[in-house]
Amino acid sequence: MPSPTATAVVGVTGYAGFELARLLARHPRLAPPLLMTREAAEAASADLAEIYPQIAPANGNGRLHPLESFSWERLKSAGVELLFLSTPHEVSRAWIPQALSLGLRVVDLSAAWRLRQPQHQQVYGFEDSDPPTAARLTGQAVYGLSELNRSRLAQAQLVANPGCYPTSIILALAPLLQAGLVDLDKGIVCDSKSGVSGAGKQPTAKTHFVEVAENLSAYSVFAHRHTGEILEQLELAPEQLTFVPHLLPIPRGILSTIYVQLREPTVEEALLSCFHDCYRGCAFVRIFTPPRLPQIQYSVRTNYCDLGFTLAPDGKRLVLVSCLDNLMKGAAGQAVQNMNLMFGWDEQEGLA
Amino acid sequence: MPSPTATAVVGVTGYAGFELARLLARHPRLAPPLLMTREAAEAASADLAEIYPQIAPANGNGRLHPLESFSWERLKSAGVELLFLSTPHEVSRAWIPQALSLGLRVVDLSAAWRLRQPQHQQVYGFEDSDPPTAARLTGQAVYGLSELNRSRLAQAQLVANPGCYPTSIILALAPLLQAGLVDLDKGIVCDSKSGVSGAGKQPTAKTHFVEVAENLSAYSVFAHRHTGEILEQLELAPEQLTFVPHLLPIPRGILSTIYVQLREPTVEEALLSCFHDCYRGCAFVRIFTPPRLPQIQYSVRTNYCDLGFTLAPDGKRLVLVSCLDNLMKGAAGQAVQNMNLMFGWDEQEGLA
Amino acid sequence: MPSPTATAVVGVTGYAGFELARLLARHPRLAPPLLMTREAAEAASADLAEIYPQIAPANGNGRLHPLESFSWERLKSAGVELLFLSTPHEVSRAWIPQALSLGLRVVDLSAAWRLRQPQHQQVYGFEDSDPPTAARLTGQAVYGLSELNRSRLAQAQLVANPGCYPTSIILALAPLLQAGLVDLDKGIVCDSKSGVSGAGKQPTAKTHFVEVAENLSAYSVFAHRHTGEILEQLELAPEQLTFVPHLLPIPRGILSTIYVQLREPTVEEALLSCFHDCYRGCAFVRIFTPPRLPQIQYSVRTNYCDLGFTLAPDGKRLVLVSCLDNLMKGAAGQAVQNMNLMFGWDEQEGLA
Amino acid sequence: MPSPTATAVVGVTGYAGFELARLLARHPRLAPPLLMTREAAEAASADLAEIYPQIAPANGNGRLHPLESFSWERLKSAGVELLFLSTPHEVSRAWIPQALSLGLRVVDLSAAWRLRQPQHQQVYGFEDSDPPTAARLTGQAVYGLSELNRSRLAQAQLVANPGCYPTSIILALAPLLQAGLVDLDKGIVCDSKSGVSGAGKQPTAKTHFVEVAENLSAYSVFAHRHTGEILEQLELAPEQLTFVPHLLPIPRGILSTIYVQLREPTVEEALLSCFHDCYRGCAFVRIFTPPRLPQIQYSVRTNYCDLGFTLAPDGKRLVLVSCLDNLMKGAAGQAVQNMNLMFGWDEQEGLA
Repeated sequence: MPSPTATAVVGVTGYAGFELARLLARHPRLAPPLLMTREAAEAASADLAEIYPQIAPANGNGRLHPLESFSWERLKSAGVELLFLSTPHEVSRAWIPQALSLGLRVVDLSAAWRLRQPQHQQVYGFEDSDPPTAARLTGQAVYGLSELNRSRLAQAQLVANPGCYPTSIILALAPLLQAGLVDLDKGIVCDSKSGVSGAGKQPTAKTHFVEVAENLSAYSVFAHRHTGEILEQLELAPEQLTFVPHLLPIPRGILSTIYVQLREPTVEEALLSCFHDCYRGCAFVRIFTPPRLPQIQYSVRTNYCDLGFTLAPDGKRLVLVSCLDNLMKGAAGQAVQNMNLMFGWDEQEGLA
Repeated sequence: MPSPTATAVVGVTGYAGFELARLLARHPRLAPPLLMTREAAEAASADLAEIYPQIAPANGNGRLHPLESFSWERLKSAGVELLFLSTPHEVSRAWIPQALSLGLRVVDLSAAWRLRQPQHQQVYGFEDSDPPTAARLTGQAVYGLSELNRSRLAQAQLVANPGCYPTSIILALAPLLQAGLVDLDKGIVCDSKSGVSGAGKQPTAKTHFVEVAENLSAYSVFAHRHTGEILEQLELAPEQLTFVPHLLPIPRGILSTIYVQLREPTVEEALLSCFHDCYRGCAFVRIFTPPRLPQIQYSVRTNYCDLGFTLAPDGKRLVLVSCLDNLMKGAAGQAVQNMNLMFGWDEQEGLA
Repeated sequence: MPSPTATAVVGVTGYAGFELARLLARHPRLAPPLLMTREAAEAASADLAEIYPQIAPANGNGRLHPLESFSWERLKSAGVELLFLSTPHEVSRAWIPQALSLGLRVVDLSAAWRLRQPQHQQVYGFEDSDPPTAARLTGQAVYGLSELNRSRLAQAQLVANPGCYPTSIILALAPLLQAGLVDLDKGIVCDSKSGVSGAGKQPTAKTHFVEVAENLSAYSVFAHRHTGEILEQLELAPEQLTFVPHLLPIPRGILSTIYVQLREPTVEEALLSCFHDCYRGCAFVRIFTPPRLPQIQYSVRTNYCDLGFTLAPDGKRLVLVSCLDNLMKGAAGQAVQNMNLMFGWDEQEGLA
Repeated sequence: MPSPTATAVVGVTGYAGFELARLLARHPRLAPPLLMTREAAEAASADLAEIYPQIAPANGNGRLHPLESFSWERLKSAGVELLFLSTPHEVSRAWIPQALSLGLRVVDLSAAWRLRQPQHQQVYGFEDSDPPTAARLTGQAVYGLSELNRSRLAQAQLVANPGCYPTSIILALAPLLQAGLVDLDKGIVCDSKSGVSGAGKQPTAKTHFVEVAENLSAYSVFAHRHTGEILEQLELAPEQLTFVPHLLPIPRGILSTIYVQLREPTVEEALLSCFHDCYRGCAFVRIFTPPRLPQIQYSVRTNYCDLGFTLAPDGKRLVLVSCLDNLMKGAAGQAVQNMNLMFGWDEQEGLA
């Protein structure tokens, strides 16, 4: 048995960071991860269990999940090999050049390094301090959709962990697009619905219980930041895909209903084969055989992305349904899956 | 002041029937409605307040909302002019010929008389006992989408009250289709999400709290019974419209997200004018000016249908959002609105 | 018909203030109320319908619910007779002396004037600028539990509108305590559960959807600010009543389960008579006959307080269940009811 | 490593049975459990993953969780040592004599064998076919509250797994009662709130989403079947404990708020010691240090019972808060914990 690998997570008090901390803490290949925050005061003497009592042990005086203030020195002294960042875009964009220069491998859960095109200034609204370095690292970053970039992940120094919506949409569409089955002239519609944890832990008017409960709302129509990574990964032009996210009155889970038209009338079996061929050997993609369709309950709190479809009697109009847990396959779970692939481990380790 | 009009409702113990009973009971033009059920036992000595305690009065011994067993004699002796049926399709189909022959006007909340084409056998799975009469009445029935069939409703003997999903979809699409703005070759997508009361009061696995809460599911893809009335009313071919309903973890409310492509690049103002022109003077359609969009909370427990939209930067891809309360504008509220139009009253009476 | 009465509400953007604005706007005795906020900027050109789109009219350009900045001059120029304050405790405490000196009658929805004992400094944590005046007004203030202080309300200049929890608890206990039926040595337990709107509109960690959904929590055990007014109104010593509030994952509604022991073995009928005698002629208290018990759904969005009970076989242990809507009978609805009593109108006006 | 132990579960399609099946399937000491139902048809060719798709594997044709019809022969041929029954009371009562006579050890999740007093006929409403045998087995059955009956469980042939409410209440009260701290003359109040899965998977009016959502209701006041086991285990007289369960609008989780009065004024530290002493070494009881209190979210989907308290300033009135997951520590999780103790394994095996 090799010695355990040292990891660190920055941003463990947010929803995705906490989920990641839980997963890493029980991963069989790892030493207990460093649980870091960017706030010095918060980390002084706190334990993550004080913020999330669900992880407190039964006999409760030990600090089993100590929070630490982030520092490069601490990473070095602990021999950290892999750094997870669950931090705002600007922070990830600013810190990662240094992390890489120190020889760390990085999985970044923010959107800072997901886009290949130099558009993040316009999308995310901040500027790089060192544009040439940023451009170089953009070229090196591997988009961490585990199933589709498996081989590149093995060598990756920097993994840009995908957004939750993009994961649900790209996994559903990639097999069909790669097989050339879709009539792109007709346009693709992605109607996605997400639980509230996707909006983050910061209390806002949008996440107030009274505003969310008994409600459903569409938001950021034609303007969601995730649109860019979907288009890039699927190699689509902006006018070929319409993506509308909605806020569901549930804590977690995403369901994307995706509408495409096929070039030629097709039969169910052909589509089923297309999906099975694409995801053969993938532990975390489940293909539902019609007439069964995924529901949010089936994949919530797992790392699965569930895919199903219904084909119209005309054999051309196709409705895809894709479900996942936005904090697992849509964030922390996929980050762990990517780590497994980066280190040559079974992709299911620590995720079963 | 004319003498109050006598009405009766059959099926008041269901969700839509109860909502209707509440509305009629406080309508200023009406005598207290007869509250009828098809079950003799249930009606023997019961009061509707025993089933729905929310309507019980403060000093509680009087039977203020007495339930009665349905009979034609009782309708006659009470001088009923207008009969509301909130009954299963088969019952409505079977009873309405007799009701009309007795000179009653009828608003039917079931789907029994909504379709013009002789397809209800295949859609609803039962046969008429007297096909020629049924065919004749089908021709007379007015589809009760109040805003679009205002003048025909004034003379109607039989009003087929629309389904909840169709109301939300037809009101959103009709102005654009009438103006010829939509590129039908690209197809229209209607992604609708409904609260659970739309599934009825009967307990089933589908309506069990544990199956619905923390969940979202698509159902009846390409196979929902409401599809036919949407196609007929909008004069679309089946392959031009894809309708997918979803079950939301909330008690009531519908949000339909509708995707169309326009023939020509268009500007927001033109679309806004199109909607305002179509619904000028309509008290229950609210047009939202972009970037505002309807949400379920805004229209729940009202008779409004709220319409909003976002136009893509390309001026061609258009996302419409339509919200209503499935028991109000989607059922009982629209039934009252239709009654108002049938009798020449202000459409808002009893609904403000 | 007398000319309509002029009223104003300060704090209409909060949940209780908005509910109050809606009620006053449709009250048959009133002119359109002044809708005021303490923020100048917010009020500059806004309409309340921009914050709460549910009240927008169908043809939407008119400012039907214009927001105004608060000023004493505006109250005077509008001829306001009755001022409603839905403001923080400190604001109500500071403003009301001036309001009364200007001859206004006031209904205060905050807790500022509810307590007779000079304890509000310790309970609410601020000091009066003019203690003698504050003491004098404290003596004049009428605790606005409509059913119990009906006659005093008719003459009141200053009404301290009760808290939501106290209303549910006092109405349940007062009849039994007045009749001397309760064994106070055994202690009274009030286990109350409230929807989230009771915590206010300000987004906080406590009101974040993800923290509330799928959860239940007790809070402020032995330390809730409402305890004092319950004790004072029921004339109980602190050790005689234990009150524990809980936060429910619903937007609105309160259910209080109250446990008392009776001095003597008693029968159901005697208790029922006690309640009916106490609330005879009260339009907004509904007594449930056992074995029926109130549920939150029955009274939500009404001004009712629903009371029910179950007596143990031993005839001594008694469980009371009291339900109301925290924004209606627990706040805005009771404020309107109190206004009706202050002006000699039917207590149901504008609330049916 | 010893060979894996063979187990079987009857009733795996219900909520508790399914949870148990999941736990057993990943327990390191066990062979794959037999997943049994009492319905022949259902079991013919089905897989549990067809009913609960959340457990389907990624490459989905294998029957990994095959359902079987129950038969004694099958238990024998599979060498089953331990039988779990998640069946109705009558079935458990009828089958268990035969199971024991065949040498099987049994954990019964129903209430059939929990009561020592011969009262189950009156409580559960059915009669034994062989009263003397039933009486003998009643004497042998061990009440499976793991923490309190640890030593007796090691030898038990028949374990009566406790109810969910009783587990939350008994664990909170036992330390204080054993230490003689409670003034029983004042009475104990247990106000419990449970998620809907506790009501079972059968769709009923009570579990319909529309009846539960946005609601809270008390039920079975002074009449809940769980009262008897609480009284017996805590050795209380009926008039000393008042237990009122409530139905929460969440899928799972229980919070019990328990009110006691202490004989003598006491300090927080003494109470904390009392709890820590009682549950020293117990892996699944977490004691919260004031002012922290358990919430449902902290223990849901775990096998923990979380205990906390607040002591009044008078040092005598004490509020206890006890939380657990009704399907885990309240049913299936405790059943596994009991199995671990019956076989001499670490109580945490398969539950961490």
